[in-house]
Amino acid sequence: MIKRINVSVSSQGLYDITAQVKQVVETSEITQGLCTLYIQHTSASLLIQENYDPSAKYDLEQWLNRLVPENDPLYTHTIEGPDDMPAHIKSALTTSSLSIPVENGQMLLGTWQGIFLWEHRYGHQNRTVIVSTLS
Amino acid sequence: MIKRINVSVSSQGLYDITAQVKQVVETSEITQGLCTLYIQHTSASLLIQENYDPSAKYDLEQWLNRLVPENDPLYTHTIEGPDDMPAHIKSALTTSSLSIPVENGQMLLGTWQGIFLWEHRYGHQNRTVIVSTLS
Amino acid sequence: MIKRINVSVSSQGLYDITAQVKQVVETSEITQGLCTLYIQHTSASLLIQENYDPSAKYDLEQWLNRLVPENDPLYTHTIEGPDDMPAHIKSALTTSSLSIPVENGQMLLGTWQGIFLWEHRYGHQNRTVIVSTLS
Repeated sequence: MIKRINVSVSSQGLYDITAQVKQVVETSEITQGLCTLYIQHTSASLLIQENYDPSAKYDLEQWLNRLVPENDPLYTHTIEGPDDMPAHIKSALTTSSLSIPVENGQMLLGTWQGIFLWEHRYGHQNRTVIVSTLS
Repeated sequence: MIKRINVSVSSQGLYDITAQVKQVVETSEITQGLCTLYIQHTSASLLIQENYDPSAKYDLEQWLNRLVPENDPLYTHTIEGPDDMPAHIKSALTTSSLSIPVENGQMLLGTWQGIFLWEHRYGHQNRTVIVSTLS
Repeated sequence: MIKRINVSVSSQGLYDITAQVKQVVETSEITQGLCTLYIQHTSASLLIQENYDPSAKYDLEQWLNRLVPENDPLYTHTIEGPDDMPAHIKSALTTSSLSIPVENGQMLLGTWQGIFLWEHRYGHQNRTVIVSTLS
């Protein structure tokens, strides 16, 4: 089964999509198998991370912004704005697809794990994450 | 179904393998499911990235080369040449497997997404990417 | 089929889990399909890397420790110890899930490829990797 999750983002940052993915898995009625997420963009990515303490998410974002700054004189791809090339690099360093096992109809996430869409650009965007379930 | 894609590379860089993967998916005759790519090497990796503007690919390569330079005094693994240890690190920072959903017999790539083999070494190499389709 | 692999780790580093995953694939009796690994933690990750020369693993660990040092003044998430925030960042830069094709009952790993759990914290930990096989 294939379902699309639409995520409306307003700026850079980690957006928790765990509840939306859970709902898709429940609707799919698979009891055991695999749930695979795929993001259809190259300036946003997917991440499994701690969902408990907001300071961990904050530091993760700040750290990556420092590693991949805007206005780096190395960039030649600048026509789409100062946040565009850093967004492509950040996507390359994280991931476009993730697979999570399903048992008894539930994703086997660890106790502190959440599923996040990591938006790397500033503006309002509508992002699409495709959820596939296989058993 | 499992098929091997052979990619002959001549130097470092991003090689677009989207057309070859598409052909495997079409040959597999699955209508809905998952297409998973796996690269059998540890000094080349897989990447979903923008396929439109060559400057984005160029900057991505330059940026990673600067982050993971050759001849870093930290390296002790140097007997296979100055490009070998950087290649292992670059592979670790990107990915060895990728899963893309399939619907109506077509991979659900985003409008500007291409599938790339990222070669991290200099010389001529024959690389193997394994494509598995499941429905 | 879903099986859990328990990995007891004693400190930071790359732990080769190839033999344990192989055993699960053999027990599953699938002849052709996909083996997917998922790690239930956010301060340890999964990696396909060279399994032959220990110096490559050593350099990989040293390099990542230098890129993501402890006690970075940027960190605000510090209550769980100096190795905690670097561990989350290192997990984000590597991966939480990996899929490997299976043919004739064997994973199609490249000649020099091993499957590793990369522990990013110092202390003794019990880590769980979930192996799902689909055909």
